[in-house]
Amino acid sequence: MADTKGARTSARLVESMLELIQTRGYSGTGLNTVVAHANAPKGSLYFHFPGGKEALGEKAVALAAERFRAMVTPGGTPGEVVRRVLDALARLLEEGDYQLGCPVSVVTLEMGAESDRLRAACADAFESWVAPLAALLTAHGRTQAEARSLATATVGMIEGAVIMSRAQRSVTPLRCAADTVVPLLDRP
Amino acid sequence: MADTKGARTSARLVESMLELIQTRGYSGTGLNTVVAHANAPKGSLYFHFPGGKEALGEKAVALAAERFRAMVTPGGTPGEVVRRVLDALARLLEEGDYQLGCPVSVVTLEMGAESDRLRAACADAFESWVAPLAALLTAHGRTQAEARSLATATVGMIEGAVIMSRAQRSVTPLRCAADTVVPLLDRP
Repeated sequence: MADTKGARTSARLVESMLELIQTRGYSGTGLNTVVAHANAPKGSLYFHFPGGKEALGEKAVALAAERFRAMVTPGGTPGEVVRRVLDALARLLEEGDYQLGCPVSVVTLEMGAESDRLRAACADAFESWVAPLAALLTAHGRTQAEARSLATATVGMIEGAVIMSRAQRSVTPLRCAADTVVPLLDRP
Repeated sequence: MADTKGARTSARLVESMLELIQTRGYSGTGLNTVVAHANAPKGSLYFHFPGGKEALGEKAVALAAERFRAMVTPGGTPGEVVRRVLDALARLLEEGDYQLGCPVSVVTLEMGAESDRLRAACADAFESWVAPLAALLTAHGRTQAEARSLATATVGMIEGAVIMSRAQRSVTPLRCAADTVVPLLDRP
């Protein structure tokens, strides 16, 4: 029981950290705010995360990577898969009134120079999105090299479009990304 | 003379703010650090920027937009122009040992929910990059709608590729973006 309760508290702390990073970034997220947001007991943070904020941030980045992968529904051509992802992101941004951004991008930009541990977690998150898209492209007839390059460019385009959509409070950049990249992904 | 000196101090403060945002983001940049980095007199910050950090951040975002526009050298097809930009960004990242990121992206992600003034400054910066690329594309025969969409997607792809390159400490994502988008920009 204690273990289960502890696991729940730990999961809530990671969840809150992720939500706060998505809204305001890593540096602007204080640990007291995370504990309050998670409705967790004081002291639970260093009990579950002896590595402190960096360790919690690393788990939040890994959770963000997993959440994004879960948005990718299988079926259809690479272009159809990516279009569904871009549509889902557009809905998320609209429903959240453009208050959320990609936690992996913001942690890279804030902490890339200061924490190699967080930078590496972000690199792993990007790779966890590129690899399955590259595999899907090779399954649809691309060479390994073509597939890697196109998948990397596509993940970058999605990242950039999310940021521009947030800045402009409009899903237009996500729509432009879809119109540009979907035909490219499905070209024979 | 006093005015000139004041203008120089003000410019140094904006320059330092920009450099610090590029390295560690907006929230992690304290004003005392900016003043010390700029080697500016204490008190000069609120003298030149009565609006405080937000006003200084707004100027830094505008300076970042201008710097990026200055990287765009005219001549050739849209694809050639964009390839030169991606090459220049790859050199900047390598020379800076991947310690610098795009200040406009990070300010959008950190402050988009908290400061409409900074969010709008970021939207203006993105627009200042999209508009000239769209104009170049229409000059090369695209319709207005096609040009807008492709220019928006390209700027997003560049942003995303910079972030991924920084996370991976490799210019490969920038190379992948070039290989993907350059042929698309120059397709008749």
